[in-house]
Amino acid sequence: MQKAKLWGGRFSTSTNDLMESFSESVSFDWRLYKHDIAGSIAHARMLADVGVLTADEFNKIEAGLKNIETDIEGNSMDWKIAYEDVHMNIEAMLTERIGEAGKKLHTARSRNDQVATDIRLFVRDSIDRITNSISRAQSELAQKAATYHDTVMPGFTHMQTAQPVTFGHHMLAWNEMLERDYSRFIDCRKRLNISPLGCAALAGTSFSIDRHMTSTELGFDGPSANSLDSVSDRDFAMEFNAAAAITMVHLSRMAEELVLWSSDAFGFVDLGEAFCTGSSIMPQKKNPDMAELTRGKSARVIGNLTSLLVLMKAQPLTYNRDNQEDKEPLFDSIDTLEQCLQIFAAMLPGMQPDAEKLYEAANKGYATATDLADYLVRKGLAFRDAHEVVGNTVKHAVEKGVDLADLDLETLRDFSSSIDDDVYTILTLEGSVNARDHVGGTAPSRVKKAARDVILGLEARRNAMAKE
Amino acid sequence: MQKAKLWGGRFSTSTNDLMESFSESVSFDWRLYKHDIAGSIAHARMLADVGVLTADEFNKIEAGLKNIETDIEGNSMDWKIAYEDVHMNIEAMLTERIGEAGKKLHTARSRNDQVATDIRLFVRDSIDRITNSISRAQSELAQKAATYHDTVMPGFTHMQTAQPVTFGHHMLAWNEMLERDYSRFIDCRKRLNISPLGCAALAGTSFSIDRHMTSTELGFDGPSANSLDSVSDRDFAMEFNAAAAITMVHLSRMAEELVLWSSDAFGFVDLGEAFCTGSSIMPQKKNPDMAELTRGKSARVIGNLTSLLVLMKAQPLTYNRDNQEDKEPLFDSIDTLEQCLQIFAAMLPGMQPDAEKLYEAANKGYATATDLADYLVRKGLAFRDAHEVVGNTVKHAVEKGVDLADLDLETLRDFSSSIDDDVYTILTLEGSVNARDHVGGTAPSRVKKAARDVILGLEARRNAMAKE
Amino acid sequence: MQKAKLWGGRFSTSTNDLMESFSESVSFDWRLYKHDIAGSIAHARMLADVGVLTADEFNKIEAGLKNIETDIEGNSMDWKIAYEDVHMNIEAMLTERIGEAGKKLHTARSRNDQVATDIRLFVRDSIDRITNSISRAQSELAQKAATYHDTVMPGFTHMQTAQPVTFGHHMLAWNEMLERDYSRFIDCRKRLNISPLGCAALAGTSFSIDRHMTSTELGFDGPSANSLDSVSDRDFAMEFNAAAAITMVHLSRMAEELVLWSSDAFGFVDLGEAFCTGSSIMPQKKNPDMAELTRGKSARVIGNLTSLLVLMKAQPLTYNRDNQEDKEPLFDSIDTLEQCLQIFAAMLPGMQPDAEKLYEAANKGYATATDLADYLVRKGLAFRDAHEVVGNTVKHAVEKGVDLADLDLETLRDFSSSIDDDVYTILTLEGSVNARDHVGGTAPSRVKKAARDVILGLEARRNAMAKE
Amino acid sequence: MQKAKLWGGRFSTSTNDLMESFSESVSFDWRLYKHDIAGSIAHARMLADVGVLTADEFNKIEAGLKNIETDIEGNSMDWKIAYEDVHMNIEAMLTERIGEAGKKLHTARSRNDQVATDIRLFVRDSIDRITNSISRAQSELAQKAATYHDTVMPGFTHMQTAQPVTFGHHMLAWNEMLERDYSRFIDCRKRLNISPLGCAALAGTSFSIDRHMTSTELGFDGPSANSLDSVSDRDFAMEFNAAAAITMVHLSRMAEELVLWSSDAFGFVDLGEAFCTGSSIMPQKKNPDMAELTRGKSARVIGNLTSLLVLMKAQPLTYNRDNQEDKEPLFDSIDTLEQCLQIFAAMLPGMQPDAEKLYEAANKGYATATDLADYLVRKGLAFRDAHEVVGNTVKHAVEKGVDLADLDLETLRDFSSSIDDDVYTILTLEGSVNARDHVGGTAPSRVKKAARDVILGLEARRNAMAKE
Repeated sequence: MQKAKLWGGRFSTSTNDLMESFSESVSFDWRLYKHDIAGSIAHARMLADVGVLTADEFNKIEAGLKNIETDIEGNSMDWKIAYEDVHMNIEAMLTERIGEAGKKLHTARSRNDQVATDIRLFVRDSIDRITNSISRAQSELAQKAATYHDTVMPGFTHMQTAQPVTFGHHMLAWNEMLERDYSRFIDCRKRLNISPLGCAALAGTSFSIDRHMTSTELGFDGPSANSLDSVSDRDFAMEFNAAAAITMVHLSRMAEELVLWSSDAFGFVDLGEAFCTGSSIMPQKKNPDMAELTRGKSARVIGNLTSLLVLMKAQPLTYNRDNQEDKEPLFDSIDTLEQCLQIFAAMLPGMQPDAEKLYEAANKGYATATDLADYLVRKGLAFRDAHEVVGNTVKHAVEKGVDLADLDLETLRDFSSSIDDDVYTILTLEGSVNARDHVGGTAPSRVKKAARDVILGLEARRNAMAKE
Repeated sequence: MQKAKLWGGRFSTSTNDLMESFSESVSFDWRLYKHDIAGSIAHARMLADVGVLTADEFNKIEAGLKNIETDIEGNSMDWKIAYEDVHMNIEAMLTERIGEAGKKLHTARSRNDQVATDIRLFVRDSIDRITNSISRAQSELAQKAATYHDTVMPGFTHMQTAQPVTFGHHMLAWNEMLERDYSRFIDCRKRLNISPLGCAALAGTSFSIDRHMTSTELGFDGPSANSLDSVSDRDFAMEFNAAAAITMVHLSRMAEELVLWSSDAFGFVDLGEAFCTGSSIMPQKKNPDMAELTRGKSARVIGNLTSLLVLMKAQPLTYNRDNQEDKEPLFDSIDTLEQCLQIFAAMLPGMQPDAEKLYEAANKGYATATDLADYLVRKGLAFRDAHEVVGNTVKHAVEKGVDLADLDLETLRDFSSSIDDDVYTILTLEGSVNARDHVGGTAPSRVKKAARDVILGLEARRNAMAKE
Repeated sequence: MQKAKLWGGRFSTSTNDLMESFSESVSFDWRLYKHDIAGSIAHARMLADVGVLTADEFNKIEAGLKNIETDIEGNSMDWKIAYEDVHMNIEAMLTERIGEAGKKLHTARSRNDQVATDIRLFVRDSIDRITNSISRAQSELAQKAATYHDTVMPGFTHMQTAQPVTFGHHMLAWNEMLERDYSRFIDCRKRLNISPLGCAALAGTSFSIDRHMTSTELGFDGPSANSLDSVSDRDFAMEFNAAAAITMVHLSRMAEELVLWSSDAFGFVDLGEAFCTGSSIMPQKKNPDMAELTRGKSARVIGNLTSLLVLMKAQPLTYNRDNQEDKEPLFDSIDTLEQCLQIFAAMLPGMQPDAEKLYEAANKGYATATDLADYLVRKGLAFRDAHEVVGNTVKHAVEKGVDLADLDLETLRDFSSSIDDDVYTILTLEGSVNARDHVGGTAPSRVKKAARDVILGLEARRNAMAKE
Repeated sequence: MQKAKLWGGRFSTSTNDLMESFSESVSFDWRLYKHDIAGSIAHARMLADVGVLTADEFNKIEAGLKNIETDIEGNSMDWKIAYEDVHMNIEAMLTERIGEAGKKLHTARSRNDQVATDIRLFVRDSIDRITNSISRAQSELAQKAATYHDTVMPGFTHMQTAQPVTFGHHMLAWNEMLERDYSRFIDCRKRLNISPLGCAALAGTSFSIDRHMTSTELGFDGPSANSLDSVSDRDFAMEFNAAAAITMVHLSRMAEELVLWSSDAFGFVDLGEAFCTGSSIMPQKKNPDMAELTRGKSARVIGNLTSLLVLMKAQPLTYNRDNQEDKEPLFDSIDTLEQCLQIFAAMLPGMQPDAEKLYEAANKGYATATDLADYLVRKGLAFRDAHEVVGNTVKHAVEKGVDLADLDLETLRDFSSSIDDDVYTILTLEGSVNARDHVGGTAPSRVKKAARDVILGLEARRNAMAKE
């Protein structure tokens, strides 16, 4: 007999042992306990309000659940595989402790709306922590940008030296990625913050429940509009994980640059020993493990997104047991993203750019060739003609093994008679970066202002949140 | 000599033939032509405004480009692989037609900001068409929901009969999915509608350009904040494709239900011959191909999302040639999603539910067992006890091979003496659906109102758009 | 000082705490302990053989390691996060126990070749268990096929009734999928069974090691050919996971059919209560959770494959810390696949087809229409003409609401005068299945023989393995 | 009326226009024409052999089909969307040309077994071309390895200089990856080379066909064992694409190294202008586009694999229309992989390593620190102690800003009195690489021999194939 199972009434044979361990979820969904208990208390309070429970029953339930929460946090809860999941474990424990009233808690709900409520609350909390971590990382980037707003470095396209930019400008590029990530999580939060509680198994319930009341108590923006959809919807999981995957792609790009910049070939930055590790065989190694692991961890978050989309593909409505599989990828993406953001923010203050090497590298690779073309345009050449003139000049310089600024005026004038000796100013790295003085450009004055704007924006965001 | 190439100045050897066909993109990026031309006109107008071009040069450029656009739409453009991409083809053709002024168009920009501008405009237009298609499909669903608000059918969990619901309620569940999809695309549009034009290769330009002017002319919300980020950012592609993948997952779920519902085993709906096909060998077949293909096509959109995330993973800033690979998956996802939405909206009006079979199916599988448990709770039993009583009753009925409503009162009272003869009302399908009368519940009156609300909401949305 | 770290010699600052928990792997790679110890013993024995260790040192190392293995299996190993991974934990513990000799174990190797060796051994063992589980599931399928070789059921294409087949034939279709899976794992095992030990960090070692000796001792087919490749190669992980994903796709297809077949609409099979669960709210439910979970779990294995491919994409040689991320998806795929195969094999014996319902379903949907067309071909019509005649006949029957066999001869002859009264034999389900009597066809006699061949083949396979 | 459709007999309403363009496949599956025609000829020959067709009918069919093939290759076939796919287009055209006999071709088969046959033949041919391309690329790598077997370069782990290796050794690491890829495709070919022809729609056919005859004529290893499986099996597509994805991951790794090696920071190789392109704005640029595109293209092949797995997930047997979606990802992966392999092989001969820069880079980063530790072990220290001694020595050298070999003997002896003046030999790059003289090690003599072995192996492979 399936006595241990709360759903065992119609069964004659007990669950196969293999099946029990195959299908249990409490080993991972116990993490929902806090939200499960909050949801149960809200539900019970509402049931009392509409007369399904007595005030006394509600009080017992609330006290019992808080008691269980304390035990769980004190690590003294005896989770049982036989009870399958966090919901059944807590409900069974409650009934064991408070008796009859415990058996009434599940009136007018089902595990289907219960788990939908729990995960939404869990993801909502996760988003709040993650957006905080993003802001913190942005703040570190803006500080670096302010400090190094005029530190010249090579800007790359195709990994080839392209044009000089400033280190601060590069830091603010990273900030832009995170700014979009922040905004994406805020939009995701808005869409998930809808209460499925009261949708019961799939069709709603025959009790006169007040779904607005539970929605408000749990901080949702309102009850969901359709019960069938509510118990089968896992959009919030897919959307959250898509936002997480994009953020991880961003972190992987920054990580890739940190790995390259701290290599012997580049030598652009020092990451600090606290965020590096050594080798078991090569005594000299100092490896940028933080960055490598972050780059690697982007893979699992992309994989988790694939899992969630595959999971939901072609599922008929409403709840199918497949959906139990939504939690592990979701939890893993949340944990991974949080860890990576924290590590990244913690590592940034210790990152030291090597201004000298950056300048030297920018000086290689004909980084100011575009400035020469622009110069020729201002002297009257059409851009395409100017582009070709400079292309020929660069070819000549490559053959000579010298830089553009090393060519004397006479040689330069062989390529275009429009070149005068004012050309040497625009061939300098400083001339080049200063000239890019428009919204979004790399001119140090622009970067300085942009960094300040970011810092002020983050402060305003923090203040707005504090007020809520 | 690389004379054919607009960037050939510094090269001595010509491009390898294999390389030319390997690296060309005009065979697919020609689709950007309209947005490329719009971007070029906006850029040229601005260059004239800030004095880099003369008014006459601008006029020639504008006329030349409009001329080329007409040719492309008349299918008489001679696209050349040797010119690599849509940008170079159009620029070369322009210079061929208007001479000198054509060579000046590329002043103060690069293909890097140009292509970023083009794709954003292209995706923005695509989103506008897609959100329209979503609204149209929603409208069809709401009509069906209104018509069949009280047509009883079995609601399933785990593909097992669970509780009776109405066909209209099910249609509105589908509508809810599409409603979230709509909102997700609107948020994506907001984030992409930022102008990268003027960021040039990566660092901005040394000309005194007016990025606000081009942004406004192209309908963007403003210029982007960082040039390095702007030329390397493909977030809009990833985010768009994530939204598309979630929408396709929704369509695949609806498609799965249509396939099942139109099978011989279910027989719930008739899809109409216009959306079915036959077999080359079995003369009797009428297959739900539209639904199967939609279900299958969800796979490619999920695959495209994977491609885009993998593409961007660990790319150092700024532009790398890898990014050329962003277009094909993106275009494919746009086309696939649009087609599926259109087919879905076109197919819906002809879909006929078979009310009789639906009712009959709902009558199998003990769909009102929960109502009996709720009844017992109202008679004073704790829910868990009521659940067990009903479980035992169902077990008995299964053994007898009868339905719950077929058991006589005496038999029912063997399981619980709280059962009286008012029980038979609640065991009917009508009693069950009518009882679920709360926000989001399946009671026909609720479904009728919900359908009306959706219809009004869609009208309001349409009106608001018309005003813009 | 990094004294706790075995690589700490060149470091002045200690590892950041966050970094330590971010980068540790012992919490999951401890599972490699048995293979790590086997690898270390083989390495040490070889070092003694070539004179780098004394016989006494080797004896101490071997005894110490076996001792540690016993402790780990007795659950009394004190794993330390500070030692990062399974390798360093075991080495540090060894030195703590046996002193000086322990410090010599890591001579002529690196964690890079060590972990590559460990995982290969781990995956090899996993493959051996998995191929066994596949064989067991195949064996159950073949038994079912033998038992139900002539139980007629509807065969579907497009989920529409197509032609009658036998239940046994369907079971053997499942067996074919698993047969290919088996063969794929055998090929994967062959490619992975190469020893990387001795490749050290990346370049090999300056000691005169004997790589053939360690390879043989560990059961590998030979030492790997290139040290740089050996420490960076994770092909075996990708290939294993690809094979696992395909197998899971197969299981998801079988699971989908089990979910449908056990639904109220189909009612084709009973899965047995031991592999079903109930509902927390609906007392009548008996859900096919095993099948649903298996279907859902295919998602995580596909996601894991994505993770591994993304992880390795664009990694420069040789070892990068990213690779630490290979273990969790790999372990998860191994565990998931094993569990699903075991559940599947355990569930099969209890699965009971309902022969009556299967027959009845096959009788709906004009399943013998193709037989009628073939009949007409034998009477002299061209197939395309016969196909059209039967199409028209079916249309007529649909309109009348009857089956083909219900039409009288006169009516049938209205569609083609070639029809005689011998037609009624070929319109029966038995006539149809018996007629498909060729290799791979569904004729019961063929199915019976095919089932026996599978059973014999599995026996032969088992015997061949027993001999190895 | 559905007259245009070969399956139209039972339909009264014509196909919706949108549906027609949504569901057609001839726009991409026309590429199967050669294999479709070969399959039809084999099928017709067998039908004649078993007496279903007359010899005359067969001759007409064969001549007609060959005629159509010529037209297709001459680009004069009039493909029609209304005929949906390649099969129906060819069959309809055949009947148009040869009349009655054409209508008999489809006897005893279905599009289900026909398309399964066609794709297998198509993929088999693709594998043969791909394995050839892999061999060609391997051959180029082995040549480079032979040429540069003793060119010293830095070996990296974590992108940090680790130990010196040779350029030839690195080339052979790439070869190892391709060697496994080759073997994986061979295994895949073996599993796919089974004939599904004769399985008809799903159950086999009532005609007495000879499946061995068609299998042999088409070069298959034998007929498939189960008809239900044969029409629903797409394992070969998934397995092929998995092998392709792993190969593309390998190419992406090589591409990443080429991008880095040709950057200004590394400067290790020159790729030749023929495989590089320039910039539309920066006249000096020479970008490694081939490598970047290959890296980027790995994304689409991984995405295609995801698509195929998602497509097949949870599909009930047997053929569903979803399967039409298998071709585009498969074709795209085939084309992409072939192109990348060809480009790679074509680019390799022109790749020039800069021996001087490689040597110089190897001299930075304390690449021989491990050699010093090994030296100390030979002098009697335990490896862990030696490792720590060298770690401290490196720390000292870093602080002084000098290399290990720059420290005088006295200083070195401060760290360990075991150091004598024979230490300087082992601190050289040449000493280091020569010392790694075992199977798979980087010693130039080993690399030379390994390169020769690869070249001989490839020759033997070529000869074996020529004999087949």
